[in-house]
Amino acid sequence: MGTIIECLKNGNVPEFLDTLAEQERIDMETMAKEVISGRMVVLRNNRNTALDPIAVGNGARIKINANVGASPVQCDFGYEMDKLKAAKCAGADAVMDLSISGEPEFLRRRIIEELNMPLGTVPIYEAALGLKRPEELTPESYLKVVERQAAQGVDFMTIHSGFLKKHIELTEKRVIGVVSRGGAIMARWMKYHGKENFLYDRFDDILSIAHEYDVTLSLGDGLRPGCTADASDAAQFGELEVLGELTERCRSADVQVMIEGPGHVPLNLIEENVRKAKKICHEAPFYVLGPLVMDYAAGYDHIAGAVGGALAAYFGADFLCYVTPAEHLRLPSISDVKEGVIASKIAACAADLAKRRPDEIQKNLEMSIARKNFDWETQKRLSLDAEKFDEYLEKVVSENSEADGEAPCSMCGEWCAVKRTGKNSVSDN
Amino acid sequence: MGTIIECLKNGNVPEFLDTLAEQERIDMETMAKEVISGRMVVLRNNRNTALDPIAVGNGARIKINANVGASPVQCDFGYEMDKLKAAKCAGADAVMDLSISGEPEFLRRRIIEELNMPLGTVPIYEAALGLKRPEELTPESYLKVVERQAAQGVDFMTIHSGFLKKHIELTEKRVIGVVSRGGAIMARWMKYHGKENFLYDRFDDILSIAHEYDVTLSLGDGLRPGCTADASDAAQFGELEVLGELTERCRSADVQVMIEGPGHVPLNLIEENVRKAKKICHEAPFYVLGPLVMDYAAGYDHIAGAVGGALAAYFGADFLCYVTPAEHLRLPSISDVKEGVIASKIAACAADLAKRRPDEIQKNLEMSIARKNFDWETQKRLSLDAEKFDEYLEKVVSENSEADGEAPCSMCGEWCAVKRTGKNSVSDN
Repeated sequence: MGTIIECLKNGNVPEFLDTLAEQERIDMETMAKEVISGRMVVLRNNRNTALDPIAVGNGARIKINANVGASPVQCDFGYEMDKLKAAKCAGADAVMDLSISGEPEFLRRRIIEELNMPLGTVPIYEAALGLKRPEELTPESYLKVVERQAAQGVDFMTIHSGFLKKHIELTEKRVIGVVSRGGAIMARWMKYHGKENFLYDRFDDILSIAHEYDVTLSLGDGLRPGCTADASDAAQFGELEVLGELTERCRSADVQVMIEGPGHVPLNLIEENVRKAKKICHEAPFYVLGPLVMDYAAGYDHIAGAVGGALAAYFGADFLCYVTPAEHLRLPSISDVKEGVIASKIAACAADLAKRRPDEIQKNLEMSIARKNFDWETQKRLSLDAEKFDEYLEKVVSENSEADGEAPCSMCGEWCAVKRTGKNSVSDN
Repeated sequence: MGTIIECLKNGNVPEFLDTLAEQERIDMETMAKEVISGRMVVLRNNRNTALDPIAVGNGARIKINANVGASPVQCDFGYEMDKLKAAKCAGADAVMDLSISGEPEFLRRRIIEELNMPLGTVPIYEAALGLKRPEELTPESYLKVVERQAAQGVDFMTIHSGFLKKHIELTEKRVIGVVSRGGAIMARWMKYHGKENFLYDRFDDILSIAHEYDVTLSLGDGLRPGCTADASDAAQFGELEVLGELTERCRSADVQVMIEGPGHVPLNLIEENVRKAKKICHEAPFYVLGPLVMDYAAGYDHIAGAVGGALAAYFGADFLCYVTPAEHLRLPSISDVKEGVIASKIAACAADLAKRRPDEIQKNLEMSIARKNFDWETQKRLSLDAEKFDEYLEKVVSENSEADGEAPCSMCGEWCAVKRTGKNSVSDN
């Protein structure tokens, strides 16, 4: 069947790409060039034909991912599905199932059948499920999981192949060592066996499965900083160098690849982080978790993540993994998921506007004109959350506002500046 | 009595300045130099001796202001006091009373007597209260209000003296003309009378009152952009030029001054906005409202404001006026006030960390060490909102976690990466 890169190299343009190019408001030629070069990926397993694929990368709108997944203390796949629906409804573009209990295959099936959104996984989780200790993992059992998930229709997979044995000692100098679950599993495995990370050693086998199903590899950052003090350290950038090498191997195999990024990063280091990732990884799409710009915003980490995400996306990150208010404290609830997606949307939209995307400029302009005209219906339609808009709006309907059809809100009432200086400001006095 | 600038110029260091220097972790000499130069202001009416003053400007921690105030549709000063207490409790450093109904004098008295926080006002509001039309305002009635408020103990006042008659035509090209309430009042007044803004014409009289009570003048931006499309336009920067001139007049009179800034500004224009304001206004402290980095985040404007505020503060803004989730929709509730202050705190802390303030680095480090050690009590103490922290935290207490005193949260349970790679990761297997 081949991968999308191969199709395009052979001059065949799959039909779904037309739709995508239209959505992104770029012409087909540019899109094909971006995908072939690897600066853009299309998240779409080639067995998953019912899917609405998305484009991630240079020239595309900034995309948002929402994570869900059952944990040992809360394993209710129906509830996870409800979270996913809330995420989609709030504006998520893709989802990842990070389940670490139960039989995630069933949840994945429901996601694929019911949601039509690109689905990502971290296969090492399923491979480790049921094992007493991570060191019992074998490369073979892992590869079987990857193959099974790919065959089921998973569109992108996080693979922690860049965290090598030599990096372990670098984590010992950190304030918080390893905060990636996949990274922690591999650290334990490497220490116990005294061997190199099998996700690196067996990368060709992984590539071969990814190629077969056109699964986009998302090269995980097992060494992402878990606190701002650890940001931009030798461990993080050591792993990044390996990710750069692996990016080239993906490209040679015509396998789509993106790079995962931090984590906790202070504001002043975000530009450097994005530029470095893009440079070392040959402009592959950059997928960031947050980044969180401070460490003590627990309960409000979605806001700390929106600040970091907006800046990262402005400097070139392409894909934002949401952070919810529950981060560091518990599994997210449905309302946490919604809050997280909306905070990420704000980051994404702010960056797209700052990068002067015409569709984003247009939407902000329409909202501003509606505001000028006291057109509350249009404002509601354009807002990020029509439900909250309705809940919050308190129009002041007075004799005056009924006459001119311009009902201000309760913040200022008839003191509304827009009203005072607007088109009726002379006539109504 | 003289102003603080005069005292310092004469070599007298008021006692409260020692406390402030200690709080800001800078030495007295530096602080005196900053205040004399005008790069830092101390919000403190010299009649208000019970007050805990704050420093705003170069070298000081980024400060946060919370606005409250009754409106014609909701005039309950008890409720406004409750909002103020919530704001203080959530971390606001100063408050402004923007009441446009009732008798704000009583609310101000309660704020001054009960809160000990610097209090700001926009005197034109009280001056316009009770008038049928803004054009009935007279310079004399306005100056009386300024004098009365200063005598009562108001610490800083927003004065829209930079918006001149010649700027009015510039606003006609805008998507949304004038969105500042004070600006709208003056626009109406200038149009009706065909005269120059009396806040400009009578600036010496204003200066004389400010000097008498050491009220810090906050030069308002009546022409701040009300949508991202209007950002950085001729109207905004035209007014800014006048603010630069007025800053010099304040300095000559030994009156403390800060500059108010936008508003709605896309991410890519924030650096320019801050640098321009600092340059044109001779490095006077910069006090921004947001800025909001997009126009259609109604219901979540506190997050859009946190993104803009963090970036503005990183580039040199000194004082952040909070934005609540109610912005553009209604008067804020108590919980909106709390949400707004915390979002601004995140912006301020992120900027202080990015600017490498030692106290901010230390606090983030302590949080990270507590996280590493599963020390939930310390994390709660350091978090922005201990109440929400408690509400959210779901510790997983198992046999294993009881044994080692390391209870992970429900996000990962025993799959917790920090736990797996932490100090007990070898011994407990």
